[in-house]
Amino acid sequence: VRVAAPAVTREVEMGAPGSGMAADIAEQPGGYARLLATAPQVAEVARVIADRAPAHVVFVARGTSDHAAIYGSYLAEIRLGLPAGLASPSTMTLFGARPDFSRALVVGVSQSGRSPDLVRVLDVARRSGATTLAVTNAPDSELAATAELHVDVRAGRERAVAATKTYTAELLALLLVVEGVRTGTGRAAPKVAAVLDRLPDLAATTLDSDVPDEAAIRLRFAGQLLCTGRTYGYPTAREAALKIIETSYLSALAYSGADILHGPVAVAAPAVPVVAVVGAGPGGRSMAEVLDRVRSRSAEVIAVSPAEVPGARIRLPVPEVAEEYSPLLDILPLQRLALRLALERGGDPDAPRGLTKVTHTR
Amino acid sequence: VRVAAPAVTREVEMGAPGSGMAADIAEQPGGYARLLATAPQVAEVARVIADRAPAHVVFVARGTSDHAAIYGSYLAEIRLGLPAGLASPSTMTLFGARPDFSRALVVGVSQSGRSPDLVRVLDVARRSGATTLAVTNAPDSELAATAELHVDVRAGRERAVAATKTYTAELLALLLVVEGVRTGTGRAAPKVAAVLDRLPDLAATTLDSDVPDEAAIRLRFAGQLLCTGRTYGYPTAREAALKIIETSYLSALAYSGADILHGPVAVAAPAVPVVAVVGAGPGGRSMAEVLDRVRSRSAEVIAVSPAEVPGARIRLPVPEVAEEYSPLLDILPLQRLALRLALERGGDPDAPRGLTKVTHTR
Repeated sequence: VRVAAPAVTREVEMGAPGSGMAADIAEQPGGYARLLATAPQVAEVARVIADRAPAHVVFVARGTSDHAAIYGSYLAEIRLGLPAGLASPSTMTLFGARPDFSRALVVGVSQSGRSPDLVRVLDVARRSGATTLAVTNAPDSELAATAELHVDVRAGRERAVAATKTYTAELLALLLVVEGVRTGTGRAAPKVAAVLDRLPDLAATTLDSDVPDEAAIRLRFAGQLLCTGRTYGYPTAREAALKIIETSYLSALAYSGADILHGPVAVAAPAVPVVAVVGAGPGGRSMAEVLDRVRSRSAEVIAVSPAEVPGARIRLPVPEVAEEYSPLLDILPLQRLALRLALERGGDPDAPRGLTKVTHTR
Repeated sequence: VRVAAPAVTREVEMGAPGSGMAADIAEQPGGYARLLATAPQVAEVARVIADRAPAHVVFVARGTSDHAAIYGSYLAEIRLGLPAGLASPSTMTLFGARPDFSRALVVGVSQSGRSPDLVRVLDVARRSGATTLAVTNAPDSELAATAELHVDVRAGRERAVAATKTYTAELLALLLVVEGVRTGTGRAAPKVAAVLDRLPDLAATTLDSDVPDEAAIRLRFAGQLLCTGRTYGYPTAREAALKIIETSYLSALAYSGADILHGPVAVAAPAVPVVAVVGAGPGGRSMAEVLDRVRSRSAEVIAVSPAEVPGARIRLPVPEVAEEYSPLLDILPLQRLALRLALERGGDPDAPRGLTKVTHTR
């Protein structure tokens, strides 16, 4: 399966700082196509889960994968009608909690599959009778071996420390699993499959815009940032903030479009840009009040949206899709923005200070 | 029930900026005593929940109350062995999700009890057969009326927009409920009750330290901040960050002691102070690696801890208690720090820019 790699941040030369992250970002349309081509294997996993009919879903993850897990939990609640949430591994690894997961589907999401705390949670869950699923980019990892079920997100080796293509591959894998459970057959419904078929091309189109680079150049002197989005826009806001934190060391706060109104909106100010994810649906529409409030504080809005956003100084354009698919596209221009911003500020996003690719937490 | 009010931020005069927040903070030892005196009413609620034997616990909350809910979810997992997590109201209010909560205890935590999204979630949950509980400072609120069970945290009217005494009252109410469910009788076990009896005095002692004021004066020029803690230390880190965000408009990032190692630790730098919650137990001990990493980046550590923390420049002293009780004390010096920092920077923490006491989100 081949999709033409889009030109991402055109000036990044092979071997130069950021070239690894640029290459990872550019591979995402092809990664979507590759994972979609292996949908039958995901379907087997989804069928097993549908047969077990779990009563609720528990996700465990760290860092970037945490944001994929948030997306998964929204899909489980909205598309499957199952209560879903994220568990804290440390209640089990440090405090010996042994929750009864017997009616749960417990999903560990991790690109490396090597964080000991996640392995431990999947082990505890499996022993208590849960259906366990590992979603990783590492089929030979301990996490994959510990869980009963495994989905390989097939993103290929990631060059940069900051995760990009493994994140979007995790998103798609979780979507495929949920849609397969939803129909009961393991395969997505035809209407969903039709959208997914277009995904590689939509991703390539999205990555082809140079607006994120222009926005990054504009943000060169920002000392802090606010990122926000509602429901399906929230994991995107969180992930955008983390990319900027990791690669530019800026304090990028991320709050949902509801939680931001309960306090953090006070940070919005003329020198504090606000990155707002404004989808074409109920989540995006509910951002209107947030946008009013930050504009009344003279903050500049950078919107990620398929349509014009009144008052936004810059709009990072994305294709219009139903909001349940939007996380798979909306993060793409923000990855480009994070990459370019780090380069503008003289950093090397491939190897951020103080970080390594695999993090072991207990 | 009367407990001598500690002198909080001695220079704040009645009617001056911050005097409301200072008074709210000072009332917390008395608030603990008042709530403990009404423990029999909480016990009735806990007994009903114990009889229902829920299979899992779902919390919904916003802002500061979100952090009380995180504490509640850890207690549920560790002390009750029940899977627990936080739900996103917007999946239900914006996207029409109707998860099956029939085997769940669903807990809404809100000082005002007036946010429409939380009311809606409790309504959805009750209709689907859940046991529903509202924990509020407003017994006449819609949230209290919507839930089957209600615990009034009896904190009295809060003067400042930034929540302090309602937060700690929510923490204690959740602890009382969980410990009452744990024994099955609705009352806490004698060993737990013995610790709780000392709580008002411990809180008064904690608030009597002037070290938080000295730390705040030192932080006057910090442009950003990192707050971190593990398990029971995590809600404290989150709440400290939110207080500083709300009242000083600083970008204060909050990450768990595990998640921070998966990326945000890169922000630590000579000019970026790190507030670390280091309890006397497994959570605090697990912070050693975090402290090493931030110190290797020449960041200054401000520790909240009952014992000396190697390499910490400033230690905000707190009494030594088992970590499951520590959130009720550890936040106190951080509230003082947030108050004093806002005053140092010329703000009025009683009325932060752009915020109101009751926030309506849908």
